[in-house]
Amino acid sequence: MRTPYLLFLGDAPEFSMIKTAAGIREWRPEFSRAQFRLPGCGVDLGLPDMTPAEAAAEGVGTMVLGVVNVGGFISEVWLASIVAALEAGLDVASGMHQRLADIPIIAEAAARLGRTIHDVRQPKQVFTPGNGAKRSGKRLLTVGIDCVVGKKYTALAIEKAMRARGMKADFRATGQTGIMIAGHGVAIDAVIADFISGAAEWLSPANDPDHWDVIEGQGSLFHPSYAGVTLGLIHGSQPDAIVVCHEPVRTHLLGLDYPVPDLRTCIDANLAAARLTNPEVRAIGISINTSRMGATEVDQVVKDIEAETGLPCCDPIRHGASKIVDLLDA
Amino acid sequence: MRTPYLLFLGDAPEFSMIKTAAGIREWRPEFSRAQFRLPGCGVDLGLPDMTPAEAAAEGVGTMVLGVVNVGGFISEVWLASIVAALEAGLDVASGMHQRLADIPIIAEAAARLGRTIHDVRQPKQVFTPGNGAKRSGKRLLTVGIDCVVGKKYTALAIEKAMRARGMKADFRATGQTGIMIAGHGVAIDAVIADFISGAAEWLSPANDPDHWDVIEGQGSLFHPSYAGVTLGLIHGSQPDAIVVCHEPVRTHLLGLDYPVPDLRTCIDANLAAARLTNPEVRAIGISINTSRMGATEVDQVVKDIEAETGLPCCDPIRHGASKIVDLLDA
Repeated sequence: MRTPYLLFLGDAPEFSMIKTAAGIREWRPEFSRAQFRLPGCGVDLGLPDMTPAEAAAEGVGTMVLGVVNVGGFISEVWLASIVAALEAGLDVASGMHQRLADIPIIAEAAARLGRTIHDVRQPKQVFTPGNGAKRSGKRLLTVGIDCVVGKKYTALAIEKAMRARGMKADFRATGQTGIMIAGHGVAIDAVIADFISGAAEWLSPANDPDHWDVIEGQGSLFHPSYAGVTLGLIHGSQPDAIVVCHEPVRTHLLGLDYPVPDLRTCIDANLAAARLTNPEVRAIGISINTSRMGATEVDQVVKDIEAETGLPCCDPIRHGASKIVDLLDA
Repeated sequence: MRTPYLLFLGDAPEFSMIKTAAGIREWRPEFSRAQFRLPGCGVDLGLPDMTPAEAAAEGVGTMVLGVVNVGGFISEVWLASIVAALEAGLDVASGMHQRLADIPIIAEAAARLGRTIHDVRQPKQVFTPGNGAKRSGKRLLTVGIDCVVGKKYTALAIEKAMRARGMKADFRATGQTGIMIAGHGVAIDAVIADFISGAAEWLSPANDPDHWDVIEGQGSLFHPSYAGVTLGLIHGSQPDAIVVCHEPVRTHLLGLDYPVPDLRTCIDANLAAARLTNPEVRAIGISINTSRMGATEVDQVVKDIEAETGLPCCDPIRHGASKIVDLLDA
């Protein structure tokens, strides 16, 4: 994708609907040149507001749809802006389920103008089933008690902490926002079911013995909607290390009337699953999401979890991820 | 699909590669009119050998690709035969991942000649993620220590045994061969990864309280290529009962340098996974594949497994599945 980006926030009324844009703004500030908001937009990423034409004049390469919605469809309200971006000379990238390439007015404009449209959720590769063969290099996978608990953020924070101390590390994206941040990856939940572990093997190929792939986890072994994706990703990733992502105040799975598993059960189940393709796997830390907790409460929870599990525990947003990386850099 | 069938065995060197053809031959003998073999084919289903033209003259309606391979692609070696079948007046059905409809020479021939091509592995429905909500009716799922161990055969034999004693039962197909036998179903490994459990929920909808869906299992929780599919199918099926399929003389997973799990470990892991969406799940029998064992050896193995597990054990090919159904019909 041609950088830098114009982050399209559309008519998003609230922050929870621009998580793709917010992720790019946080982790790739150097690419986040401007934002483009429509009437009705209720959020602000603190970037200069530009139209596609203004952004093109400033050297922007791609307009990224940074807004999400339930269903993952391209809103009709956005169509004129997308075509305007193509006409201004920008490429356009989307992580929605619905493909830009399937919308005639967009496909035609891109073809006529010679622009590139990126539907990053659509796998471009042809995958094969995983083969479970051992690959060189080291791999860390984030797993979780539930969806939307911080697996992507944790992986990015660990990559950052590793690189800060000179370790060889690459974040490996498995979801649309991660792919936009990294510039590559595979939306693992969008591949054909037979090829989940094969796609995960493709994502973290053989590498130097001291190189770490830090792989973004998806779903949860305890989530009845998505556990199949989670298990295939675990098997294909062959992690040497797992970091378990947890939100201490969460009681029920996202969107379902199912309780969250307890932390010990979650650690053990993920290790048992991972041992199939890597008998040496270890749990090396607990990453907690404390966005709904106060500072005093957080300190106590960290102590409690460390005592209970014997593993380092931190919130990567509050504390960074150095504490977890210490164990791998010994 | 227009019956009867010409079963295309292609250049398959060994029996394990024609399981689709063998399944149709076994469970739908009335539709299995002839076989079509290419040079190099090392298997024989005991049907008359016919070319597509000869089969058409005998009233055959559809040529079914009865051969499988890892990856599910249409071999170039088969293309001329497929086109010949279309030109002879036959429809063509395939259970491969790669679609006949995507191969220009086949699509063009079908369009020009007015024939129908059936890509049964391609889901026709639009699925959504599973929701884990309880459904009425009872469900039995076959699971296994490995792939290709008898899960489809066991499910079909259990449906047959249930119906023979007047129980309400329906075989639910999850793979291409099962779909060709049943006439409907979903190739669960061909759906988008996000929708595995949702597709399984769709496959066995709410039903009468005394009705059994007998669901064909896929893969194995212990197979690093396919375990994600297996787990999503378990969660979406919400089985009340599982039957564990086993081959006592098998030492390694199909095609991989991985040992098979021991039977107890396999039973426990499948029950643990199934409890997430149905805490009442029970293991109710062991189905063994004894095709590579002698009769005396089989008798001893049945006794040993029954003593070890406390569950009824039988080979549905040698013994039928009544012994397993007894426990549900009490």
